[in-house]
Amino acid sequence: MSTPPAVLRPSDWRIGIWRSFLRAHATVLRDLERELADAGLQLGWYDVLLQLAEAPDRQLRMAELADRVLLSRSGLTRLIDKLQAAGLVRRAPSPDDARGTYTVLTREGFDALRKAVPVHLEGVRAHWLSHYTDDELQVLGGLLGRLSAPPE
Amino acid sequence: MSTPPAVLRPSDWRIGIWRSFLRAHATVLRDLERELADAGLQLGWYDVLLQLAEAPDRQLRMAELADRVLLSRSGLTRLIDKLQAAGLVRRAPSPDDARGTYTVLTREGFDALRKAVPVHLEGVRAHWLSHYTDDELQVLGGLLGRLSAPPE
Repeated sequence: MSTPPAVLRPSDWRIGIWRSFLRAHATVLRDLERELADAGLQLGWYDVLLQLAEAPDRQLRMAELADRVLLSRSGLTRLIDKLQAAGLVRRAPSPDDARGTYTVLTREGFDALRKAVPVHLEGVRAHWLSHYTDDELQVLGGLLGRLSAPPE
Repeated sequence: MSTPPAVLRPSDWRIGIWRSFLRAHATVLRDLERELADAGLQLGWYDVLLQLAEAPDRQLRMAELADRVLLSRSGLTRLIDKLQAAGLVRRAPSPDDARGTYTVLTREGFDALRKAVPVHLEGVRAHWLSHYTDDELQVLGGLLGRLSAPPE
């Protein structure tokens, strides 16, 4: 087992692998984004609606939502504004914090998400999963899981 | 070797690996973004400046730039406007296409990028590379490389 260098140069082959990681993410996400948009939902919206759907009482504080979204956090407040204008979420005061506000998934939001799930999952299958065997997925999961593990 | 199902359910363990992939990307990118911002440059800016620096004559058409950036393409035009206002890029008419416009890296843009590279590479080392041996990186590169291969 070799150890990586203490200082990386841009030409290091390891940076090539890093860029493969970014490129893979960008490529797959762009395919998924296009297909989901064709079905009437932006991928960033899907991400927010899904996090809310999985939260207790289908509601989260903004800071919690920012922690959980898997895509971009930039512009999250504006995105919530748009979801609210579309009737897919509503804002509600927090009962135990006078200054806090929850973002709550509405029935319409839940329905929009439910309609989009099959389109999205089929995209994940076609653009990502179909490239791997189950054994390879296990390896990939083990390697990627290290990156988002809680700090030691 | 098992084959994945033709239709995925949200509870499928493979979707868990997919979410590890998204979670890993989000976690590492947020660390890199914060550190680079502390050094005075946004990660999205870095991405654009780097693509221009690596292009012939350090210039690209908007469509080429949109193809090459590794982070978000949404809001790219607005991002270029900001880079131009900051003097890091300039726009130039294309000599062989009356309607075309190039985005060109300026000397200031090149200097800003060069200053940011060591900060960014140290972040890539600390938040990503340090989790893997070289052998593991080769495996990861092989698996991820499939996702952004040219269409068959």
